[in-house]
Parts: sequence; C-alpha cells; structure tokens
Amino acid sequence: MTYEAPIRDMMFNLDHLSQWPQVSALEKYREIDRTDARAALEELGRFCTDLIAPLSSVGDTTGARLDGDKVVLPEAFATAYAQFVDMGWQSLAHPVDHGGMGLPRVVGAAATEILNAADMSFGLCPLLTDGAIDALQLSGTEAQKELYLRPLVSGRWTGTMNLTEPQAGSDLGRVRCKAEPRADGSYGVSGTKIFITYGAHELSENIIHLVLARTPGAPDGHRGLSLFLVPKFLVDQDGTPGDRNSVNCVSIEHKLGVRASPTAVLEYDNATGYLIGEENRGLEYMFTMMNAARFAVGVQGVAVSERAYQHALSYAKERVQGQAIGLAPDKTTAIIGHPDVRRMVLRMRALVEGGRSLSMAAAGWLDLSQNGDDDICAETAPVAEFLVPLVKAFCSERAVEVASLGVQIHGGMGFIEETGVAQFYRDARILPIYEGTTAIQANDLLGRKVLRDAGQTARRFSAMIADTEAALQTGSAKLQDIAARLGEARAAFDASLAWLLETAPNDPRAAFGGSVPFLNLTGTLAAGWQLARGARAAEAELQRGNETGFMAQKITTVQIFAHHILVECESDRARIMTGATSLLDEASQV
Amino acid sequence: MTYEAPIRDMMFNLDHLSQWPQVSALEKYREIDRTDARAALEELGRFCTDLIAPLSSVGDTTGARLDGDKVVLPEAFATAYAQFVDMGWQSLAHPVDHGGMGLPRVVGAAATEILNAADMSFGLCPLLTDGAIDALQLSGTEAQKELYLRPLVSGRWTGTMNLTEPQAGSDLGRVRCKAEPRADGSYGVSGTKIFITYGAHELSENIIHLVLARTPGAPDGHRGLSLFLVPKFLVDQDGTPGDRNSVNCVSIEHKLGVRASPTAVLEYDNATGYLIGEENRGLEYMFTMMNAARFAVGVQGVAVSERAYQHALSYAKERVQGQAIGLAPDKTTAIIGHPDVRRMVLRMRALVEGGRSLSMAAAGWLDLSQNGDDDICAETAPVAEFLVPLVKAFCSERAVEVASLGVQIHGGMGFIEETGVAQFYRDARILPIYEGTTAIQANDLLGRKVLRDAGQTARRFSAMIADTEAALQTGSAKLQDIAARLGEARAAFDASLAWLLETAPNDPRAAFGGSVPFLNLTGTLAAGWQLARGARAAEAELQRGNETGFMAQKITTVQIFAHHILVECESDRARIMTGATSLLDEASQV
Repeated sequence: MTYEAPIRDMMFNLDHLSQWPQVSALEKYREIDRTDARAALEELGRFCTDLIAPLSSVGDTTGARLDGDKVVLPEAFATAYAQFVDMGWQSLAHPVDHGGMGLPRVVGAAATEILNAADMSFGLCPLLTDGAIDALQLSGTEAQKELYLRPLVSGRWTGTMNLTEPQAGSDLGRVRCKAEPRADGSYGVSGTKIFITYGAHELSENIIHLVLARTPGAPDGHRGLSLFLVPKFLVDQDGTPGDRNSVNCVSIEHKLGVRASPTAVLEYDNATGYLIGEENRGLEYMFTMMNAARFAVGVQGVAVSERAYQHALSYAKERVQGQAIGLAPDKTTAIIGHPDVRRMVLRMRALVEGGRSLSMAAAGWLDLSQNGDDDICAETAPVAEFLVPLVKAFCSERAVEVASLGVQIHGGMGFIEETGVAQFYRDARILPIYEGTTAIQANDLLGRKVLRDAGQTARRFSAMIADTEAALQTGSAKLQDIAARLGEARAAFDASLAWLLETAPNDPRAAFGGSVPFLNLTGTLAAGWQLARGARAAEAELQRGNETGFMAQKITTVQIFAHHILVECESDRARIMTGATSLLDEASQV
Repeated sequence: MTYEAPIRDMMFNLDHLSQWPQVSALEKYREIDRTDARAALEELGRFCTDLIAPLSSVGDTTGARLDGDKVVLPEAFATAYAQFVDMGWQSLAHPVDHGGMGLPRVVGAAATEILNAADMSFGLCPLLTDGAIDALQLSGTEAQKELYLRPLVSGRWTGTMNLTEPQAGSDLGRVRCKAEPRADGSYGVSGTKIFITYGAHELSENIIHLVLARTPGAPDGHRGLSLFLVPKFLVDQDGTPGDRNSVNCVSIEHKLGVRASPTAVLEYDNATGYLIGEENRGLEYMFTMMNAARFAVGVQGVAVSERAYQHALSYAKERVQGQAIGLAPDKTTAIIGHPDVRRMVLRMRALVEGGRSLSMAAAGWLDLSQNGDDDICAETAPVAEFLVPLVKAFCSERAVEVASLGVQIHGGMGFIEETGVAQFYRDARILPIYEGTTAIQANDLLGRKVLRDAGQTARRFSAMIADTEAALQTGSAKLQDIAARLGEARAAFDASLAWLLETAPNDPRAAFGGSVPFLNLTGTLAAGWQLARGARAAEAELQRGNETGFMAQKITTVQIFAHHILVECESDRARIMTGATSLLDEASQV
C-alpha cells in the first residue's frame, strides 16, 4: 500500500491558483517563501510514505478497541504519533508565537492532504487538534492560551470537538449537556456526548475536550449553548497534567471505515470545565472550529481520492487482461489500454485534481480573509465563506465516487479486503456525513451564503468565472473549448440562481428541495473554474517551454473535467428548476 | 432489520408491464394464472420476512469461514436452507417435468428479488443453482438431465459456475484449466478456479460444479474452452451421491460484503468431470448461464435497493431532528419533513421502482423469446437480448447509489455497522463487478447488440419509446410532462446512437470510450420508458377509481424519475459525443 505525495501538482496549485503573491505578502507570512513550503511538504511526504502509509491497513484490520476505560490502538500508531510530534508536524500551520512553524493555510491544506492520504484514521487526530487550536486562539482568555496552546500546537496534547448527543445530531439546539458554575469560577460539566473522534486514546499526555453545554437558566435552543474546555487530566498552574478529570469513555463505535480512529461515547459526570469566551455564545465559537473542520474534511476527500487514484492507476498499468480494442496486437494489453478503464482512471484524476485546485484556491482566500487588513478582509471574506461548503461537499461526495471507481478498476480483486482499495471506499463514506452532512452544507450555501445577501456573492462568483472564460478565449483551441464548457456550466448556475432567488421567498420548500443539486452544481462549477485557471497557467508555462509534459497533461486533465464532469451541471439545473413539483407532490405519501 | 416484500408493486408490474397476457398464453404456462403467481409471491414474502431477513446481519457479522476443508456458515443458514428446500422455493421458476412449479420467468424475477432483498448472501446460492439448471437443460445429454436436474431443481443439490482463474478474469480466453479424456468417457479435470460463489459449503447433499477447461490440443483462446460437469460427490447410476471427487476448497475470500456467501478458491486435481454438449463450445453454453445470471444480478440490485429504501424510509419517518423549513412549527419534525431528506427518499423510491419495472418487463420479453413459437421468438429475442445488459448495469450501478443514499439518510448512524444499512452499501458494491463488470456489459451492448446489426434493434427500441410518448401525450398534464422528459432522453439516445454508428468503424477506441456512458444513458432511458408505460396504466386505473392512492403515487414516482433521473441522459450524450478527444489525448500519459 504505497503512497507518494503529489508535490508537483500541489506546488502548481500553490504557484498558480492560491493567490500566493498576496498570501506571502501578508505581514504574518513575510518570512515564508515557496522554497520553505516545498521543503516542508517534501519532508512531510517522505515521513508519510515511510511511516504513516503503512499504518492504514494495520489500523483497518486491527481497529481501535476499548479495554476497561482505555482505548487501545495498534501499537504502530503510538510509535508513529510520537515521531509525528517529534518532527513538529502538528505545528506546521500554527503561529510561531505558540511554537508553530507559521506556514500559511494553503500549505497547511496540502499537508493535511498528504497526512490523510497516507492514513485518514491517523490524520483525524491532528485534524481535530487543529480545530481546538483555532477555537482557543480565537475565543480563549490569555491565561487559557498560555496554558493550553503550546502543548496542543506541539501535538503533545490533542483536542476534540464535543457537539453531538443521541438526540442532537444535526440539530444542536437539542443539546442537553449541563454546566453548573462553581465557586472557584470553573463549571461542573455533566452529560453524554457521542461520535467524539479521538475522544479517548493513549497517544498523547492529555486530551483537551471542547464541549457544548448549557448553564442553568440558559435559553432553549441554539442560543443557550456555551463552550467549555474540559481536560482529560486537570492541568497545574505550571502546565503539568495532574488529576484525572471525571470524563470517561464508556464505549467506542464499530464503524464502516476509519476503524483505527476511535469514535467515543463520553460520559461527563460533574467534570471540571472552564468557560471559553462568554456564556451562550458557544455555538458561534464552535462554528469557527467547525468551519475549519469542514474545510479540512474536504481536503480529506482529496486525500483519500488521491490514494485511491494512485492504487487504481498502478493496478491498471500492471494487470494484463484482454486485447485493447483498436490497438495493434503487439501493443500493451494492460487494462489501462481498454478505453473504459482509461476513462475511469482519467475521471479519477480529473476529480482529484479538481478537488485539490478548489481546496487550495479556497485556502488562499481563507488566508487572505483571516490575516489581511480590513480592506483585504472585506474583499475576500464573502468569497472564502462561499467556498467552504463547496470544498466540503464537492470533495467529500466526489471522494465516495472516486473510491468506488477505484474498486471498479480492480474488478473482483477490488471486493477482496486484502487488496486494500475497498478500505478507501469504506473510509470515504463518512466524509459527506461528518462535520455537517451534504444537506447541511447545502442549507449553509443556499440559506447563509446566497439568500442572505440576495445573491450578491453568488453573482460575483459567476462574474469571476466569466472573467476566466474571457481569458481562456484568447488561448489555444483547447483552452477555448474548456471556456465554452465552463460557460455552459456557468449558464446553468446563473439560471438556477435566478430561479432560487425568485422562488425562495414564496416557496422555501421548493427552493430548498433543490439545495443539494444546487450545491453539487456550484461545487462542480467551482472546481472546473479553478482547473480552468490552471489550464491557462499551464499553457503559459508550456509556451515558455517549462515542464512541457506536466503542463500538457494538466491541460488535458482539465479538458477531461470539462467534457465528462462539467456537463453534469445542466442536469442539476433541470432538477432544481423542474424537480420541485414532483418532489413536493403530496401523492407521494411519505 | 425487518423486510416486507413489495407484492403490490410487483403485481402492478406483472399486470401492466410484463406482457402477461402473451406470456400466460404460452403453451408452457397455460396452467398458470396471476392468482397463482400472487399466492406464490405472498407466501415467499412471508417466508423471507420471517426466516431469511433475520439472517442478513447474522451472516454479515459471523461470515463464512474455512475449517479444514469445510466451509462453515452461521448455523441459522443451514436451518433456513433446509426449510427453503422443503417449501420448494428453488423449483419456483423451473419446469414441471423436472419437479418444478413451472412459473414464468417474470414471476421468478420477482421471487429472486424477494429472496435477495431478505439476504443477498443467502440468495446467491439458489441464484447459482438456477444458472446450473438452465445450462444443463439447454446443453446436457438426456442422461445428464435425468441424473442431475431433479435434485438441483428441488434444491437438495446446489450448482456453481467455474470460470475465473487468477490470470483469467474478464478475459476467459486465458483459462488454463485442463481436462484429459479418460477411457470411460469421463475427463480428468485439473486446475485452479477462483471467485467461486458457494463453491464449498455444507448446506446441500451435493454440489454440481460447471467448469470451463481445455481438452488436449484444443485451440488457444475462447474457441478452445469446453464445459464440464464436476460433482463434489460422484453420483451413482441411481442418483445417490457416493465417493468424494478430487475438488477441494483451499481458501475462501475475506470480502467487503456478502460475507456469508462463501467465495471459494477450488483446486481440481484430476477430478472426474463429464463433458456437457460438444468440445470447444463451452463458452457458448456458459453464456446461456451467464446471461441468466446477469439478469439475476440486476434483480439483486433491485433487491438490495428495495431493502435499503425500506430502512431509509422508516428511519426518516422516525428520527426527529430540526424544524422543517416552510412547514408550520406544529408540523412533524421527523427528518422526512426536510426537503432534502424527502428528495433522497423519493429518489431511492424512483430508482427502485424503475429497476423493478425494467427487470420485470425484460423478464416478460425473455419468457416470450425463450418459450414462444418461431415468430414470437424472432420478434422478441433481439429486444430481450438488448435489455439484458441494461438490466444488469442499470440495476447494479443504481443499487450502489441507492445504498449510499440510504447511508446518507441515516447520517452518523449510517456509518455505525450495528445500524445495518452500511451492510447494504458493502453488499451492493459487488453487483457492478461480478457476472461481467459494467464495462463488459457496455461492450456487450455496443459491440454485440448495437453495432452488429448496424443499429437495427437500437432503432426499434427508440421507436417503441416514441410510441409510448405518443400514448402519454393523450393523457393528463402529468403524463404529458413525463412524455416530454422521456422524449428529451430519447433524443439524447438517438443522437448518441447516430454518432456511435458513424464513429465506430473508423475510430473504435473513440466509440468504445463512450460505451459506459452509452450503457448508462440507455439503461436510464429504458427504466424511464417502462415507468412511463406504468404511469399510463396507473392513470387508466385511476380513472376507473381503482386503488387511487397507489396509482396516484405511482404517477408521481414516475415524475420524480423524469425530473431527477432522466435528465442525466443529456450529460451522457455530451460525454459520448465530445468526450473522446480528451479521453484519448496522448498528453494524458497513463
């Protein structure tokens, strides 16, 4: 189960799609140049190829198990995690003043991809820690930051998000967990939280749980939730973990995939917790963490897709079977020679590269919107926020498709667990569910990012795509062809947008019945747009004679995306604009 | 994990889509009426609800294992199989003169669906026995039929298909297994066969293996394959199983799904085999068996889809979460109230009912083409053969989609194995692979069923759809709307067909690069066509005041299919007609 980090494509995206000149000009990143970024990614790539990628089948086979109140992971995980911490990988995209390497988010996105491609089960632990760091940094007191940030940034401690309860999944308004204030200023947190990723394990010296709970007399629903920091081991003033807090893992789940990532049920029994920020603003703080996590889940989608793609390509070039139609008999009969196997491999590649371009471009906007001055922030924040649900949904839904294509290319062998590719199909399946299902992303896109500003950002998005089309029209026939397909997909978007803006006020059910098709359409268009920008950059490089093989292949991959994937936008438009009548017809009796 | 057989919808399909009047008028089926059919399906439904459906989670958890040279299945399987045989279910669609109930194939298709919905792992055993019965009946000697058919038809013995070898998967020309003639007229069969479903088990008194092998001096490739009958226990002249034959199970596979269905590696070591039919015509005989098996795999797709749908619908109506947008606050907040959950549930329903209509209609054509007089046969055989790859591919690929939607509707719970719906996602994944991958079905459709007769049958298929559109145009506004969508999908088919007929002679790689999109388009169109016929029948019943709730719902389901699924045909057309240039561009460097 080998894996090689796709550094070349990552650097292409960084150079051409991530607004690198603006990002690296930010005060925060002034010390960083692309050589540092490349060096870090290459070293992480080697580390992951050697140490993390071999964990994935071990972790899948052995899984996590509960022994008493301890979660036992395969032994290799402890060794690998210790080395991960030693090499400082957790700190890669965190601020220098808390011990981080201080690389921008766009480099962090590439690093997250590499780690999760090597093993999603392993990668989930740092991913959740990243989220806890973000939330603390944004909303914690100075004392909390002082005490908790450095060990989290180093990876010596890990973090979790505690939102879900049995009756409160997508609907956090139903959270019942309680927090009673104590005389010393701390709170006694009680209740049951489920689906807590890495909620219990022995990899790190401490676990910092961020927990949504209600203080006495808090309002019902979303507005009465506060955020608490609940350490597994209570921390002395000097930062040393001491007494065990009363939060216990009572069971872990038996899951379809990511089996070495322990998914815990945690019981809080008057556990000592500390309020983060102000009371009743917990959901707002959690959203910061969730937005970062949603983006990261999209990147996990690119990761598992890339891994599945590498395996499928390699198998397709090795496995000899049948005679390739239309090729001379002395030509190879490896199955890649069959037109449909070639189609599947190239479709996988186009989806992987589309997802990577979308997520790395979005990371650039996020960097600018979070670290730029007020003008930059006002300019970039709406676009960055518009792109987050697209990254989450496009990359996660497509990961399921890509992993499934990977199984298909392996034929009967794909269905045998030892081949390893069925694992990607199982692992990927959680991506469109956790950190907000695809439907939740669709509500976010349509409700918060489109209807709330009456389509202003959506129209700007469309206009930026039109600009890209115009630029491509001045290029080669291939670029013009890509521009034409992009234009068709954009027209489908524009028509859907107009319909949704008109329909939503009077018939919200009809509008929201089309929310997922709209999300799919928009995500596909956004990925196609970024790839199209890439094709233009590639043609410029080609004309300069730089890396002609890579650049020519990039342009072809974008064409594959245009011909085989962008064409799906039109069917989503039809679903949105004509599908509501049948969808809501009461004769359906559901 | 409850399951209820969808008898009402099955009878609707039998009455209105399966050409029942012509089928039941065939000499062979003259004794059968629809009351018999309904009674048999209802009784099978009860049997499966009570005895087979509870097996699916047991079988998945326990799986099959090899103990010495014996395959051990969960105990409940042996009890259930014994009752299955006692009640005569194996014999349902087999001829009366070999002990069968003699029901037509269209009823057999419904029975196969019920059994496989209850448990695919269990259902695979009778499915393979059905195939062995078909092959023996068509190509066996009278003596072979006398000796083997009755115990197979009763289910006391089971059958297997032995095609695949490690180097010979989709490419059977590479089969190496040998068969040496002996003085007594039998053959000594030697070699290794892999992926043999129910190749070893203890459920039945004997296993009849049908094995592709080469006699000495046989031509290379496909033309040198002969078919042999190799019993697990050699059979006396009076039909009693005696000595153990030298065929042994050396391992079974650890699979993604259908885990209680043992997938065996069989070693034949000079095992005693008997030639079926003539030497070197083995592939031709096997094709009979394979066509029946391909059709049956399509039906398995409908089966697992129906099971996933029943679970998702039930969960969506029970799980309370969030407030449904656009509904009064006092309205239900079960998640089915959310427009996108409703969309997913109804999409599942439309795909299930579309698959059922397509397969039951195809079963009617198959019945007529195999049992009608020469005129009926000449009229129906080309259409029946055209439909087989569509049934296999549409129903199997859509089963993966439907099972995945079922997981999505369950949210986080869908990813937990105990919920049970992840199993359908795992089980379904084999369907587009075994009995010929989707690409193999696409080669069959484009190569044998379209190009070979220069598009004649394909044009007839299109003309029949146009007739259905014309009939719908005389109906209600809903029917006219369905007709319009069907017409758009048919136009996409016609354009693709014209392009493929023109392109294939000069550029076969370009044509076959579009073979899977063409198969998807054609299968979707065919299912939509059958549903549209159903909508028309439902409107007629509605006007007569019959079962108005069911009939109105059927029409809406067809509209859902038209608005949300038929619209995909246009993107497949675009892929076929413009996708070949990028697909075959050498810059892709694969």
